[in-house]
Formats: sequence, structure tokens, C-alpha cells
Amino acid sequence: MELTLYKRLQLFIRSCSMNLKHQKLSELCSKCVISLFIIYVLLCIKSSWLTGPSPTKLGHTAAVFDSAGTLHKYNSETSPIVFIGGHPRSGTTLMRAMLDAHVKVRCGEESRIIPRIVQMRDNWFRSEKEKDRLIQGGVDDKVIDAAMSSFILETIAQHGEPAEVLCNKDPLTLKSGEYISSLFPKSKWLFMMRDGRAVINSVISRKVTISGYQLDNPRQCLGKWNTVVKNMNEQCNKIGSERCMIVYYEQLVLHPKRWMTLILDFLDLPWDESVLHHEEKINKPGGVRVSMVERSSDQIIKPINVDALTTWVGNFPQDLLDDMDAVAPMLEKFGYDPSKNPPFYGMPDGVVLNNTNDVHQKREQWEIKSKQLIAQMDKKRPA
Amino acid sequence: MELTLYKRLQLFIRSCSMNLKHQKLSELCSKCVISLFIIYVLLCIKSSWLTGPSPTKLGHTAAVFDSAGTLHKYNSETSPIVFIGGHPRSGTTLMRAMLDAHVKVRCGEESRIIPRIVQMRDNWFRSEKEKDRLIQGGVDDKVIDAAMSSFILETIAQHGEPAEVLCNKDPLTLKSGEYISSLFPKSKWLFMMRDGRAVINSVISRKVTISGYQLDNPRQCLGKWNTVVKNMNEQCNKIGSERCMIVYYEQLVLHPKRWMTLILDFLDLPWDESVLHHEEKINKPGGVRVSMVERSSDQIIKPINVDALTTWVGNFPQDLLDDMDAVAPMLEKFGYDPSKNPPFYGMPDGVVLNNTNDVHQKREQWEIKSKQLIAQMDKKRPA
Repeated sequence: MELTLYKRLQLFIRSCSMNLKHQKLSELCSKCVISLFIIYVLLCIKSSWLTGPSPTKLGHTAAVFDSAGTLHKYNSETSPIVFIGGHPRSGTTLMRAMLDAHVKVRCGEESRIIPRIVQMRDNWFRSEKEKDRLIQGGVDDKVIDAAMSSFILETIAQHGEPAEVLCNKDPLTLKSGEYISSLFPKSKWLFMMRDGRAVINSVISRKVTISGYQLDNPRQCLGKWNTVVKNMNEQCNKIGSERCMIVYYEQLVLHPKRWMTLILDFLDLPWDESVLHHEEKINKPGGVRVSMVERSSDQIIKPINVDALTTWVGNFPQDLLDDMDAVAPMLEKFGYDPSKNPPFYGMPDGVVLNNTNDVHQKREQWEIKSKQLIAQMDKKRPA
Repeated sequence: MELTLYKRLQLFIRSCSMNLKHQKLSELCSKCVISLFIIYVLLCIKSSWLTGPSPTKLGHTAAVFDSAGTLHKYNSETSPIVFIGGHPRSGTTLMRAMLDAHVKVRCGEESRIIPRIVQMRDNWFRSEKEKDRLIQGGVDDKVIDAAMSSFILETIAQHGEPAEVLCNKDPLTLKSGEYISSLFPKSKWLFMMRDGRAVINSVISRKVTISGYQLDNPRQCLGKWNTVVKNMNEQCNKIGSERCMIVYYEQLVLHPKRWMTLILDFLDLPWDESVLHHEEKINKPGGVRVSMVERSSDQIIKPINVDALTTWVGNFPQDLLDDMDAVAPMLEKFGYDPSKNPPFYGMPDGVVLNNTNDVHQKREQWEIKSKQLIAQMDKKRPA
């Protein structure tokens, strides 16, 4: 069709030149042909954009409409997804709330289903017999990776309003960080690190069930913490420092502006002052959507404050404190002095000190606000 | 950009008309503008094709290259996927091998991962607490369905060479037929039904492990068979007779041409003589790919024959035969006389009788061929 048109145009130009013998005319005609050519090239470029990424690595594309009816597309090979990981109770919720407050980012609640499907795959691969059955049945890595990446991408993409950058926070996904990051080559990872003593004190006092943890045995729990963060640190190293950044919870809380500047820089995101006031965006459209059944929800309602840093002090028996370095050698590895109770984490910025004082002085007001916000979070309540 | 070009063209036409005052010229110019407009419309249509299905129901798209480098796309909302289900040892492998022999269809081996992910979802929904946690975390049906359908579609699409119609045979997926068929509204379902006594005799004699089945207790196994086919029949009814067809294994074996005609008709597929000679396409490109670790592989190597129909006779104790109707009431419901050992399944077509004689007379040749073919199936052997 296009060729025929081209031939017709050629004939048209020739007939013009020959029959009319008018210099100006043939000049104008050639201009017309050039215009035609430019339009064609522009439209070809437009249509090649619409077909998506290059055919050599197709990846997987998820498409979502936002509430205004605009279509957003995400691709596993090309989209810059942010994954937040770390041991449970290490500030992963605070981290994701601060990013959720950023105008270009949406994280949302824990999906719970992403770590499970990743674990399901781990289980298949742990059994030699099952792995063999899958391979003999033609279900090789190519098949499984395509299924896994599409499941993960669809979960993240459909889990809330679209945003320029999507983000996921299921703390334990980092245990399979190397694998998941291979499915999402443009993903970036934030590894939340926190003093293991504070982590385990929080796990025990808030009765957070983690499979394999004996909540009446702090020594055993600290050993588990040590294993998990050791493994996550290895995964983070395998992902590489270009794509995995360790964020110390204590430093983020003490110096939020300094650390959020570093983090947004690492994520190639522009500065947005909102990240320092995540508490103002709780339950707001485009802000921080929260689950009323997650353990940290009542904490991220408040502005950044230092209350959680040292509540663990005095809650561990002396014999455990004496053995701390042997029980949890990763403490020292990450710069937490195992013999100090507490170690000196640093001096908070002025704004954090003010927040902390405010939370203390207006304790009752914060209680009321907290109850209101948590009631608002109920996704089953009548609209 | 396009507007600017349009304005330039307008100016060009006006200047032509005004300055040159030449009738023929302005006529040619208007032709030129019409040509331009046609090109633009054509390219717009082309680019809207490339963006995929209508935005109201996007579904999920899987893209696969065939070995010639051509891209094939499948969409969960619009592609006519075939699912073959039934109790294990009911002829599901024969059914898929016959469809695999069809030039337009590719089924392949059992994926094993599709029933597992579906079961994982069933487990989440069985626990009220877990379901509540997911909903409060914003992981509602929309999120889960998108993740599930993309996982299933990618698994099926990547699991072998592309074909016009993709097909999946994991016998137990039919247990969740209503749900899966809702994710794939254009899917069709074949429910393989076989005399439960033959099924359980095969399960026991071939030591097929199915969770919950006591292989040393035929009475218990027949009870299990009854529960499973009852459930699958309910699922098939919910999918509806337009999209779910019961295929009796015995009838398919006795009268393959008649039944394959009905089945291909039901699936909106043209007749292809190859479906009656699936054994000629074992391990052939575009034919029937087989797993050496599936229990039925040595059986579908042979042409359709009646050997498997009545081998169960004489293998059940008398007290169980006496109670058969009470133990497995679905036998009678599906037309298998529970008091006859065996019932009369029907007279085989001439070609099936010939096949059966051939398999008996050339037993040794078939043994050798079988070993060769099974060795060929090894997907780990050096190429």
C-alpha cells in the first residue's frame, strides 16, 4: 500500500516537472515529498515505542489503569523497581512509608504473597528429585523465571495506584535477593540494618511470629537474627553495591534528611521534601497506604522520633549480654558494639529531637489520632 | 510537530493556489494532501494494533519466540487455551498426546507448577486470618488474579514451542476449574473420565503417589477417586457445557475417530488426521514431547489399543466388589455398572483391533522401540 502511494507520488512529481515545466512547482513538490517522508519516519518511531522494549529481551509487561483512567505500563527488564528488605522489625516499614510519601514512588503494604512464591520455588530446587522431574517435564529455568517474574511484577503493579517508580516491601524477599534481582535487572535494593538487640526485643515484646523463632528464648532469637542478616548481607553483596544499599535504621532516624538525600540519590530520584513528613500522608490518596494488621502501623503514624532506639536496654538477661559477641557476631560486623548497652548511636538532628518531645508532650493527642487513623485503614469498613 | 507540518502544507497549498493560479496544480496538491491523510490513518491503525487488546479488559499477554525467531503472543482474556483435567490415570496423557499430534496444538508434559500455585492460593483462602491479612494489606482478588493468571499463562506459553492453540495437562487443575476458567474466559476444558476401578488398579499397580491415597488399601483409594471425580464434575458443570466436555477414556480408545471428531469440533479446531497416529509423532519437532519420568510415557509410545481397558478385572477382593456401589457411587452416575466385572465398554473400531493385535504380535519390537524412545526423551542427555 505504502509502495503504491510512493509510486503514485513519483509519477505525480514527474508529471508536474515534465508537463508544466515550471521550476518553482517542482521545487515545491520535492518539499512536499520531504514532508511526507518526515511524517512517515515520525510515525514509525511512535509505533516502535508502542511495541515496547527490544525483542531480544522481552521481559514481562504489566499494565494498570490509574483512577483517572490513564494506562501505565511496567516491564520486568526495564522498569526501575525498588525492593526494601531486611530482618523483620528493622525499620522496613518506616523506610517504605518515607518513600511512599515521595510523589514519584508507591510501595504499599507487605504483599505477603511474593516471599511465599519465591519460597515455593526454593523448595522445588532443594529437592533433587523434584528438580529432575521439572527438567524432564520441560519446565526449565526459562519457564520458571518467566512465571515468577510475571507473578511478582503483576503483584507489585496491581497492588495500589500506579506511580512512576514502583516499590515493594516484603522484608524477607532479600533472602532471595540475588535471584529476584536477576529477574528485574533495573531493580534497586535497600537493605535495612538495625541493632539486632533492638530487633529481637521488638520481635519478642510485640509477639511477632516468625517461623523457627522461639519467642520465649531471646538467645535463640538473636542467633536466628544473626543467620538471617548474614545471609541477607551475602545476597546484597551478590546484587552489588551499584544496586543494593545498606541503610542503618538508627542513622535514618537520627539524620533523616542526610540519609534520605543519599537514598534518593542512590535510587536516581529527585529530592522531595515530603519524604521527611511521611506522617502527614498516612491514608491520603497518593500517600502512605497502611494495613491495620501490620505490626508497625501504629509506629509510622507518628513523625520520626528516637523512641524506638534504646527501649531494648535492660530487657536481656546478664548471661546473654555477656555472650552477645559470640551469639550474634554480625552485631560487631555491622558496627554495633556488642559490649555496650546501649552503644552510642549518635546525636539526633534538631527536628528529630523536636518530634520526639512533641510525641512525648502530646501523648494523649497522638493516642486519639492513632486510633482514628487505624480505624480509617480498615479496608473492609463500609465506604 | 505534526501540526507544524500540517500548517506548512496548508501554506504550501495556499501559496500554490494563489501565486501560480494554475487549476491543474491545485488539483494535484489536493490529491497529495489526500495521500498524506491516507498514510497517516494507515499508520495510526497499525500502531493501535501494536498496542494490543482493548483497554477495558487488558488481560495478561505472554510473548514467545519460536525456533525460527517469529514472535507469538498469547492473552489471558482472548486466547483459546485448552485445559485437560481428570483423576490421575484416566487417560489425560493419551488425550494430550493426540492433541499434541494436531498441527495447530501444543500441550506438552505436565507442568507440575500450575496445580501447586493454584493450591497455594486455595490455602490462603482457607484460613480466615490469612485472607483478612491479605485484604487489609491491599492484596485483594484483583491483585491475586492478575498474579495467578500471568503465572499460569507464562508457564503454558514458555513450556515448549509456540502453536496456534496452547494446551495444558496437569490432571488436578480441574479441581480448581471454575477459578482458572474465570482467569481464561476463552479457555475450553476436557474432563477425562474412566472407570474408577481401572483408575485405582493403575494407581496401585504403577505405585502412583497421590497425597492422601493409601496404596495398600484399594477401598480407601476408590473412595478418594469418588470424591475427586465428584468434585471435578461439579467444577465442569460450573464451567458450563459450552466450555467443559466430558471425554470417556474407554470410548476414546474404542472409537478414536468418532470421538476426536467431536472433541476437535468442541475445540473449534479443524480435522487433522495426525491426531489418530500420535505414536508417529513422539519426540518429533512440533509433535508429542514426552517426559521420561511421567508414568504414562511407555504407554503413549504405542498406537491406540484396548490393552488397558480390563486389566483391573480380578485384582480387587470380593468384599470390595460386593460394596462397589456404596464405595464409589460415581461409577454408576457416569454409566459404569458397579456390579459387572468388567462391564461391557463397547466393541473397538477395526483400526483399534488391528493396533491391539500388532502390539501383541510384535511385543519384542515394541519393547525395543519403547526403550529407544524413552532414552531419547532424556532432557539432560548430551545433545
